Amino acid sequence: MAKAQAPDERPATDLEAGGEAPTADAARIASMLEQIAVTGTVPRRPGITRLAYSEPERAAHRLFAGWLEEIGLAVHTDAAGNTIAQLPGTDLDAPAIAIGSHLDSVPEGGRFDGIVGVVGAVEAARVLAGRDARTTHPLRFVAFAAEEGARFGEPCIGSKIVARRLRTATLARRDRDGVSLAEAMAGVGVDSRRLSEAAWDPADWAAFLELHIEQARVLESGGRRIGLVDSVSGSTRVRITVLGQADHSGGTPMHMRVDALAAAAEIIVAAERLANEPQNRGARITVGQIQVAPNSITTISGQADVTVDIRDLDWDRQRAIAERVVQLASEVGERRGAGVEVDLLAHTTPVVLPMWIRTVAAETCSDLGIPYRVLPSGAGHDAQVINAIVPAGIVFVPSRGGLSHVPDEWTNPTDVALGVDVLCGMVDRLDAVLTSGAKGTTDESA
Amino acid sequence: MAKAQAPDERPATDLEAGGEAPTADAARIASMLEQIAVTGTVPRRPGITRLAYSEPERAAHRLFAGWLEEIGLAVHTDAAGNTIAQLPGTDLDAPAIAIGSHLDSVPEGGRFDGIVGVVGAVEAARVLAGRDARTTHPLRFVAFAAEEGARFGEPCIGSKIVARRLRTATLARRDRDGVSLAEAMAGVGVDSRRLSEAAWDPADWAAFLELHIEQARVLESGGRRIGLVDSVSGSTRVRITVLGQADHSGGTPMHMRVDALAAAAEIIVAAERLANEPQNRGARITVGQIQVAPNSITTISGQADVTVDIRDLDWDRQRAIAERVVQLASEVGERRGAGVEVDLLAHTTPVVLPMWIRTVAAETCSDLGIPYRVLPSGAGHDAQVINAIVPAGIVFVPSRGGLSHVPDEWTNPTDVALGVDVLCGMVDRLDAVLTSGAKGTTDESA
Repeated sequence: MAKAQAPDERPATDLEAGGEAPTADAARIASMLEQIAVTGTVPRRPGITRLAYSEPERAAHRLFAGWLEEIGLAVHTDAAGNTIAQLPGTDLDAPAIAIGSHLDSVPEGGRFDGIVGVVGAVEAARVLAGRDARTTHPLRFVAFAAEEGARFGEPCIGSKIVARRLRTATLARRDRDGVSLAEAMAGVGVDSRRLSEAAWDPADWAAFLELHIEQARVLESGGRRIGLVDSVSGSTRVRITVLGQADHSGGTPMHMRVDALAAAAEIIVAAERLANEPQNRGARITVGQIQVAPNSITTISGQADVTVDIRDLDWDRQRAIAERVVQLASEVGERRGAGVEVDLLAHTTPVVLPMWIRTVAAETCSDLGIPYRVLPSGAGHDAQVINAIVPAGIVFVPSRGGLSHVPDEWTNPTDVALGVDVLCGMVDRLDAVLTSGAKGTTDESA
Repeated sequence: MAKAQAPDERPATDLEAGGEAPTADAARIASMLEQIAVTGTVPRRPGITRLAYSEPERAAHRLFAGWLEEIGLAVHTDAAGNTIAQLPGTDLDAPAIAIGSHLDSVPEGGRFDGIVGVVGAVEAARVLAGRDARTTHPLRFVAFAAEEGARFGEPCIGSKIVARRLRTATLARRDRDGVSLAEAMAGVGVDSRRLSEAAWDPADWAAFLELHIEQARVLESGGRRIGLVDSVSGSTRVRITVLGQADHSGGTPMHMRVDALAAAAEIIVAAERLANEPQNRGARITVGQIQVAPNSITTISGQADVTVDIRDLDWDRQRAIAERVVQLASEVGERRGAGVEVDLLAHTTPVVLPMWIRTVAAETCSDLGIPYRVLPSGAGHDAQVINAIVPAGIVFVPSRGGLSHVPDEWTNPTDVALGVDVLCGMVDRLDAVLTSGAKGTTDESA
């Protein structure tokens, strides 16, 4: 592999493993992470809030575009608000090898989820563009818009648009402030009637790689700094609306109540119990959002809305659990005389990622002398969506304490740099494999 | 009894009972109710929102003051924001007989709770001031500030201040937007350092009467239009804060979670179950308010705050239930590894109202030929607080369907007019009783 000279400012890394020294720069990565974080800081609120199709998300995309332009790449923003840069290869007809992730966050989230993969893509671009030799295939660096489903319920909106997998009905979905997805897009200059222009031609893309934080504790507890993802959980999300009868908390006897919050609480407890049943081990069921009306100390709740997020690696079980949750909610409503309405927010299938890309990753790690661990992803990712049209691979770096979607989210920049080294190695190896048509054969066990 | 001439615009009433015709005017009452309602209307929100110590509440007090000034009464606003008008009696040294209620509402509440008693006081003032004869005792008409505990947890703030029963610590209590009670007061020109100037001298007040909607279905189901309240429930209110660990809804296995919302849901269900236990029959336990953070579809809740409102006519049981709720919450927190903090918001004792005032009310109803029902109040009222320093009585008029604290709250203005007739009759009878020192003897059973 051709390697760029390490820049002068590059600090010593803490890579304990043998093999070639990494070429990515942890200090530069840390600086980029910091600059992106600034765009999502909200006065007097903890953590990062850079929601899907918001101005802060656009500010982060502008930083990404600026860094890639500095390196000399041509950058454009597509009709979905995704930002894409290209480094030409030697074969002008070859499909691209791409690296990317997303820049939006959940409300009061962390600095690393998604950002690590975008900043990692910039650093990879710097390393790869700084070398004398060009790859055969063009390289693309991608920041997807709106990966987090926190705002509109639907995750991976930017990647779903390029993969032609966004249902048009989703554009009418509203956030908690009543703003529709289409309106939010318009607010940042994205015309929702022209989204189809962003669709990717699969023939133009050879592979997609995503570097991401693990968001769990497998790597940390196993003492590994690199994870190679074999499969990604699906996620079914529903909103359950319970309609009760608001009334005075003092004047209304217990037996005359239709308390929407009490009914919702029963549903929350039942959903959690369902996730803990032995046959559902491995599934995760989360009620993370609740809104009640009128939400007053002295008024029985007339309405309660809860969201239920059901994740599983097993598609059949994921659907069965979702059906069971809806049934449970109906039973609770019927028993209490409350109305129950269910709205399907998202329904993403679990994905098994292609073995041949993971083999390329494993061979790269072996080359670099980096111990790794093959593991599933409980969280969803853009690569899982892109894999429907372009073969995709995901490389994980550790999350401290496994924490994610919280202000305390933390990943060591030296681990990100190590991940970028793996990405760069994979690019070279994919470039060779795709040119020759050969596939790697290294055993995956690490 | 001396009676004023009915005004020309007075429509026929639907009073089926015999006895003297009422003197209060239902159309004038309906018009005042409508004008007060306008001050609490919020665009695109249902019902009335005229919170304690807010500008809309002040606007309603200004209407009240204006109406009484029109009638020719001297009106002043005290240091607590209560508005008080006086109609002099013939004995300049006699203590006052007072009539009043409150003008604030819960969020998205109704047009009648409190307002009926204030509008009724205005109508009573009009009737009583319009007569040739003066009472011996001066008459006062009172609109209390901030009766609803919905904003700061503490109910009856205006009446507690005049009764010297507001704890200073309550001034630091914050609403959901982080505004303290003291700050809210300052925002409408009430100086929280000078509240003691509003304190009533009990020697200056002979009796306090409150007309109020029932907020339950006893009168409606029994076909009575007048209720005489014998006792008022107490209310213990706590805020329970559950501290969990926010984390990713996909990446975090069920057994590694400390889900604050799931714990809160368990507490809500347990509190409701407690209220339904046979030995607690008659108690009412309500969780009406919940706030979770970060309240995102894809993040496990790190914090959940719920309020619990415990009401009972039995003070021992009310306290025992409150202790049990706190204990339950601690047990849930301990089992789940979550922190649980409890904050006492309010702790109002149940009150048995003085028999001799109720007897005056019963005699008045008999005089007027109005069937009535003696009943307890599940809701709290200013009269319950005032009764600690001035003997108090409460007269109820029916709430349609028993609904209260909701936009659908409804009481027929002709029933309010009937209630005003009872108030005016009680004033005359109290004036006589207090002058002679005699007490009524009529049996209460209706």
